[in-house]
Amino acid sequence: MSRQSNRATDSKKMNSELFTLTYGALVTQLCKDYENDEEVNKQLDKMGYNIGVRLIEDFLARSSVGRCHDFRETADVIAKVAFKMYLGITPSVTNWSPAGDEFSLILESNPLVDFVELPDNHSNLVYSSLLCGVLRGALEMVQMAVDVRFAQDTLRGDSVTEIRMKFIKRIEENLPAGDE
Amino acid sequence: MSRQSNRATDSKKMNSELFTLTYGALVTQLCKDYENDEEVNKQLDKMGYNIGVRLIEDFLARSSVGRCHDFRETADVIAKVAFKMYLGITPSVTNWSPAGDEFSLILESNPLVDFVELPDNHSNLVYSSLLCGVLRGALEMVQMAVDVRFAQDTLRGDSVTEIRMKFIKRIEENLPAGDE
Repeated sequence: MSRQSNRATDSKKMNSELFTLTYGALVTQLCKDYENDEEVNKQLDKMGYNIGVRLIEDFLARSSVGRCHDFRETADVIAKVAFKMYLGITPSVTNWSPAGDEFSLILESNPLVDFVELPDNHSNLVYSSLLCGVLRGALEMVQMAVDVRFAQDTLRGDSVTEIRMKFIKRIEENLPAGDE
Repeated sequence: MSRQSNRATDSKKMNSELFTLTYGALVTQLCKDYENDEEVNKQLDKMGYNIGVRLIEDFLARSSVGRCHDFRETADVIAKVAFKMYLGITPSVTNWSPAGDEFSLILESNPLVDFVELPDNHSNLVYSSLLCGVLRGALEMVQMAVDVRFAQDTLRGDSVTEIRMKFIKRIEENLPAGDE
């Protein structure tokens, strides 16, 4: 499915429940399609990557955020602008590494899991893996290679959801990027 | 994935783009999984049905809409409350049949297709079929059997998107309903 060049730039604000349930249908379908949870996690991350690669353009157009000067600024923009815009929540930014190259996003609530309980036979499923891929893909398009993973997950019994982000390197501008 | 009984009732308002792209990933996955467009349409409709069956409870809780007295009132609630709430748009209600048992929802824009162009080899794909299922499932839970289909679709070259809804019958309250 390719992008329309002349699509409307007006945005629609919607409640998150239809998105939440549609995401659940996607995860359920992948659990049918793939043999184990690890493979489902990988597919969700890959889908997220492809979404992030496209979403970043929409984000830059809507937010009028300019180039970030350091990883701390990037963290703030992700938490306060991007998460707010596309998921309606504002995670807190915390647990900085001494070198300033790693931080955590703490989600008090995660709209993706609002109606969800993990069945016992999917104990290795990282249900919201799509988000990691979205962040990785979007940041890659602004020349940042970042490692993104879930460190805590309320679905797995943790009290909060924690996404850990680690800066790897700045990508040269002239490298091509696209679908994985 | 079963529903949590104690989930938060606060709602998150989000822009539609992440939903749009995630829905695109779902349709793309189904196009890989099933042999032809008709089967994909059927699966999307079925997934939508299962979503509608669950979304209706959320809708009734949030909207505090009471029982509708006739199909015209139902049409208005769907267009002005439900579509606004979950997709951020308000379709117009039109093309009533003389008997008052059929109407059309006209969507000037359809958030599900914002980034989409149908490839040539998917000419029979009814891309937004999920919506038909959602409407059918949700209405079934309030004792209305309704036939829902796309009559026009901007993705297929029409100037607007038209969802045609036909009242079939009132369902007896004591019939069990659930996942298809």
